[in-house]
Amino acid sequence: MANLDTIEKTKEMSTTAKAGSAPSRAPRVAVAGVSGYAGGELARLLLRHPGMDGSAPIFLGRARETAADTATTIESIHPQLAMIGTKATHLVEPFHWDRLSEAGTEILFLALPHEQSREWAPEAIERGIRVVDLSGAWRLQDESNRAVYKLHDANPALAAKLQDEAVYGCPELHRDEIRTARLVANPGCYSTSVILALRPLVRAGIVDLDCGIICDAKSGVSGAGKAPTSKTHFMYAADNLSAYSVFGHRHTGELLEQLCLTADQIQFTPHLLPIPRGILSTIYLRLKHAMKPAEIEHLFREFYQGSPLVRLHATPQLPQIQHVVRTNFCDLGFALAEDGKRLVVVSCLDNLLKGAAGQAVQNMNVMCGWKEEEGLL
Amino acid sequence: MANLDTIEKTKEMSTTAKAGSAPSRAPRVAVAGVSGYAGGELARLLLRHPGMDGSAPIFLGRARETAADTATTIESIHPQLAMIGTKATHLVEPFHWDRLSEAGTEILFLALPHEQSREWAPEAIERGIRVVDLSGAWRLQDESNRAVYKLHDANPALAAKLQDEAVYGCPELHRDEIRTARLVANPGCYSTSVILALRPLVRAGIVDLDCGIICDAKSGVSGAGKAPTSKTHFMYAADNLSAYSVFGHRHTGELLEQLCLTADQIQFTPHLLPIPRGILSTIYLRLKHAMKPAEIEHLFREFYQGSPLVRLHATPQLPQIQHVVRTNFCDLGFALAEDGKRLVVVSCLDNLLKGAAGQAVQNMNVMCGWKEEEGLL
Amino acid sequence: MANLDTIEKTKEMSTTAKAGSAPSRAPRVAVAGVSGYAGGELARLLLRHPGMDGSAPIFLGRARETAADTATTIESIHPQLAMIGTKATHLVEPFHWDRLSEAGTEILFLALPHEQSREWAPEAIERGIRVVDLSGAWRLQDESNRAVYKLHDANPALAAKLQDEAVYGCPELHRDEIRTARLVANPGCYSTSVILALRPLVRAGIVDLDCGIICDAKSGVSGAGKAPTSKTHFMYAADNLSAYSVFGHRHTGELLEQLCLTADQIQFTPHLLPIPRGILSTIYLRLKHAMKPAEIEHLFREFYQGSPLVRLHATPQLPQIQHVVRTNFCDLGFALAEDGKRLVVVSCLDNLLKGAAGQAVQNMNVMCGWKEEEGLL
Amino acid sequence: MANLDTIEKTKEMSTTAKAGSAPSRAPRVAVAGVSGYAGGELARLLLRHPGMDGSAPIFLGRARETAADTATTIESIHPQLAMIGTKATHLVEPFHWDRLSEAGTEILFLALPHEQSREWAPEAIERGIRVVDLSGAWRLQDESNRAVYKLHDANPALAAKLQDEAVYGCPELHRDEIRTARLVANPGCYSTSVILALRPLVRAGIVDLDCGIICDAKSGVSGAGKAPTSKTHFMYAADNLSAYSVFGHRHTGELLEQLCLTADQIQFTPHLLPIPRGILSTIYLRLKHAMKPAEIEHLFREFYQGSPLVRLHATPQLPQIQHVVRTNFCDLGFALAEDGKRLVVVSCLDNLLKGAAGQAVQNMNVMCGWKEEEGLL
Repeated sequence: MANLDTIEKTKEMSTTAKAGSAPSRAPRVAVAGVSGYAGGELARLLLRHPGMDGSAPIFLGRARETAADTATTIESIHPQLAMIGTKATHLVEPFHWDRLSEAGTEILFLALPHEQSREWAPEAIERGIRVVDLSGAWRLQDESNRAVYKLHDANPALAAKLQDEAVYGCPELHRDEIRTARLVANPGCYSTSVILALRPLVRAGIVDLDCGIICDAKSGVSGAGKAPTSKTHFMYAADNLSAYSVFGHRHTGELLEQLCLTADQIQFTPHLLPIPRGILSTIYLRLKHAMKPAEIEHLFREFYQGSPLVRLHATPQLPQIQHVVRTNFCDLGFALAEDGKRLVVVSCLDNLLKGAAGQAVQNMNVMCGWKEEEGLL
Repeated sequence: MANLDTIEKTKEMSTTAKAGSAPSRAPRVAVAGVSGYAGGELARLLLRHPGMDGSAPIFLGRARETAADTATTIESIHPQLAMIGTKATHLVEPFHWDRLSEAGTEILFLALPHEQSREWAPEAIERGIRVVDLSGAWRLQDESNRAVYKLHDANPALAAKLQDEAVYGCPELHRDEIRTARLVANPGCYSTSVILALRPLVRAGIVDLDCGIICDAKSGVSGAGKAPTSKTHFMYAADNLSAYSVFGHRHTGELLEQLCLTADQIQFTPHLLPIPRGILSTIYLRLKHAMKPAEIEHLFREFYQGSPLVRLHATPQLPQIQHVVRTNFCDLGFALAEDGKRLVVVSCLDNLLKGAAGQAVQNMNVMCGWKEEEGLL
Repeated sequence: MANLDTIEKTKEMSTTAKAGSAPSRAPRVAVAGVSGYAGGELARLLLRHPGMDGSAPIFLGRARETAADTATTIESIHPQLAMIGTKATHLVEPFHWDRLSEAGTEILFLALPHEQSREWAPEAIERGIRVVDLSGAWRLQDESNRAVYKLHDANPALAAKLQDEAVYGCPELHRDEIRTARLVANPGCYSTSVILALRPLVRAGIVDLDCGIICDAKSGVSGAGKAPTSKTHFMYAADNLSAYSVFGHRHTGELLEQLCLTADQIQFTPHLLPIPRGILSTIYLRLKHAMKPAEIEHLFREFYQGSPLVRLHATPQLPQIQHVVRTNFCDLGFALAEDGKRLVVVSCLDNLLKGAAGQAVQNMNVMCGWKEEEGLL
Repeated sequence: MANLDTIEKTKEMSTTAKAGSAPSRAPRVAVAGVSGYAGGELARLLLRHPGMDGSAPIFLGRARETAADTATTIESIHPQLAMIGTKATHLVEPFHWDRLSEAGTEILFLALPHEQSREWAPEAIERGIRVVDLSGAWRLQDESNRAVYKLHDANPALAAKLQDEAVYGCPELHRDEIRTARLVANPGCYSTSVILALRPLVRAGIVDLDCGIICDAKSGVSGAGKAPTSKTHFMYAADNLSAYSVFGHRHTGELLEQLCLTADQIQFTPHLLPIPRGILSTIYLRLKHAMKPAEIEHLFREFYQGSPLVRLHATPQLPQIQHVVRTNFCDLGFALAEDGKRLVVVSCLDNLLKGAAGQAVQNMNVMCGWKEEEGLL
């Protein structure tokens, strides 16, 4: 288990790293949990990442020291990745801390269940390894929001300390903190789509919060994970649409924290779409004062200037899921009623890319001082 | 062209008919426009309708007196309907008024573009034929709402008179008027899903209209019609979701009129789902005073008592598109926030059945004094 | 357990029944295993069956005498069936032999795993109940073909006797035997599509069997059953196509037995289609002598004269899955090469209807002396 | 119009080019017809191609000198490509020969209807521009096979000459000829999947051709092109499967020529799958003599040694469409019956990539003396 002292020390190291310019060499990177959908996409992105040349990422399974201890390959888990990219190895090894140490791993992606991430992230950081965690384990600062994950910390003081320094890994909002972070909590897929749509508006103070913001979100089935369940059965999902977790989805806490809203100021309803991937969020809000479309557009453009992975559609064009699937972009568009007050914002992204693995690599790029979009266009 | 006198006379006749009990014989029925999706479903329902035994419906094309004048068959247009039902004939004939007169047609379904319906409905009524019109031509009483259809009337006075007596064909709301109506304007598919979800609540006066009602609706592709366009191309619709006609969909007028709301009290956004059929509307509203789920449920149950084609899900269960596809039901469910004020209503139906052909047959059943659900369960 | 004597007796009874004309009353029917896809369709068909008026079918679960012993409803398992049909009850009760006896059950549908069917069918027949079994347990006469099911019989002699009298429930081939059968083995979905396509040709002796018949079949996902597995996961099946069980699918035995072919004369390859339901089989064969399309068509028409649930497409039109989904038909069509020798037959059906529940009801109709297509058009 | 003399001269130039090693700079490339599906994929591949750095491809529309003559952008046609890649420009210009000349275009991709390709390819070659043509215009050497395209040549002698030197652009078969070719006829999507599956076997002389080879192929809807038709309507293609062009598909000629077979030795049946992209071909054949799986596998491995874009599955694993979609690979696998004689080969590829744009870029790579897989992994 990590202790507070070693944690302090690694922190200094990563702060130093920050000062430097683009590194002359690729970081030594590992991924724990490549078997899931996000893990597979992460492997694909890293195998093709131009910055990773000469430094093969290490792929690890979910289980710590398996009985068998035998390695497998990426393509035996994700056949579509066979011979993908130009990296030498496609090996997937059982998880060992020693393996990471020997390899001098600098950045570790955790694509694991949140309980496991909550346990492993501290240990990684103690070992001087920076972490990008794709689970919900570290995203929420407010303990009451975090309660939904039912997390249990072996070392609560340490966990609290790490939680405190964990950075919400949305580069468009927290680019500077991510640069030097030891623990980056990669955002939820739904949350990313809603936060990127709302942050410029809420921050500008133009939203009438009395009526509440309505977020009607729709996601493809990969968001439900790889485990076969009655809800991920083809016969349930195909030719269907269903709302779920009304008033109770666990991504809601991220919206509250990142947008600085209270629970009755924003309402989030997810739906399960009969498609493999992609999220479209339709967001309804009222403005305090009548505005013109050009003013709204200007506000978005200004906010996302310098954010290469957000694309803004000129009104009246709206993004669609098809535009973003298999890309690392979040697309935004909007429609303003004639009264200049009722605004509909539409936000789209690929839940496995900008909503998970793509954003994780974007965070890695920022952590390495590289161009944010490197390997993601 | 019809004139006001003959119109008056037919009206008396149908009022007389009303007094009677269930007719001892099947009505003589015809369908104009069987080639579209709604027309095909109408044919299927009529061919299987137990009340129609011994009285084959007449199927007619869209074109008046075609050059060729040759008959075709239902199955050459809709191969899946070959040998369906137990009726003798599956013939589709070119449209002739004489053919209808000879056959003594009593009820004519118009599954036609709205311009054509606006022209043909008066002529049918003049000839003493009652009309169930599936287009948008006669649904809207308010001329400004109707403007979206750009209708042109050859005889404006007559059209105005018929418009005045046209009944909005939602049996759950207007059962009594439909019974004797000469012109029934079958509701829009989206409108049906929203109106059935909201009418009990709005009528009870419990909705806080200041914040506005948000209707986020999603429909399968059959709602876009049979014409091949870039939007109905498989490559556009599949694996996709897109919002369209934001602040401008032509079903909005029906919501305003049937729910007695103003344009800033309700907002409607349709989306195109990558499925053949089905609509799910997620409706967001705030209540004036905090209520309990049981009170909401009671309100719905009371309103739809005696309405066999509305199914209410007990909270917290919500309807899904899969539950209603290929049925003639509208399914309703809801979720109430802990504050007892924020309410989400989910409404589902099959856009071609309860949203079109099924509701048309339901109207026919009412017009004939039969059980409303006859042939529809 | 049933013994041979009582079995003999029931047999006599059902032979007597055969002589009679159409029964004046509905049979007392029960379904064991309504929770699966075929079971749900069976429930739907029986609830709507006009011949069943006044005689509610009994729906039973899969488990014998459950601990809880509490009844549930059809709609809690299949929400889309809520309020479907005009029958009084939608109750699903735990399985009890006593319940069946008290109700005087005459026909029992078994929609169960084959091991369970192999155990329960003898017991039902001993109790004087005729059985329509939807599993693969009783379809194969040849023990070596049956080996694929790894069946274990508690009473091998009895099982052998029943197996001997079991009738392969394809009414188009065995109508007369089905009429009086005590045990009807409802055919496999794939098998039905291939057998109906080939039987008229093979029986006519026109097929050159030296080159072998190739059956390339494609099925929707419902054919894989309701259990969530990695293969029925939406992410596996959607936007995909995969061949499976090449040279080893267990429906092959039915083809051999019903078409009187040897294993090297016919080859069967199934594929998993990314659709909920429907089978299309493309069948390739060579004719001994050159023929004309009209001769082939005549041969089919003659064979299926009097078979209301087989629809033949006039060449060059070919059936499609969309034409048969949600119908009880098997559609056939063919293309003949210019040489008059190479023939492609295309066969389509809905795997849950003509391939399972629909054919089961068709068998019931035949067993009751009713019109074969009653309740199925 | 091109004449034979200038054609001769350009030929020499490109033969010279052949001798050289990998060029030190990117070729000047243009694409005519970027608006279709293959054109869009071609744009995507070129915008991301590492070898193209510093040399923006020129994108041109289909129409020669449009009236408007105004340029548009890739993203206005293919919104998903907005900001894709790292190239400076996404402009799409009207087609002008002068534009190509000024730019010093060396390789021109034609993603056009075959009539237009038949007209433009000679002109390009006359101007010293090498052509990769994605249509069917130049693939077939045998005039009777080519008849299906109903081509009309303004200058038949020239066309015949060019046809004669045109190379069938399947690098796995004709790598050497492609290297120096002036006119590369990019193969059909279906043809690629079948030819790559069969060539190693047929060439080895192990196939019993008397019984004929059966190719049962299934393709996603993008293969049908971007024009909205009744067959590409979502309602036609979704939840459906249909065979078409039985005994008459125009890709058949490519199979005959590239596999040196006669029309009665191979039979090809395409089907329309309800998915956006991907082809799976199931191919049935008999071997002259019994073989072992390892022998078949060895034969494939040997043939495709040095072919980086063909992936072979070790038996009994078979490729699936999902494995190849959005990749530039053709995946092969097979199953051999116990008799060692009946062989089923399964071949998968993405019809827009290895079946069109990906193979076109592969050809460009070969023509440039680059690694065949450059930009394609």
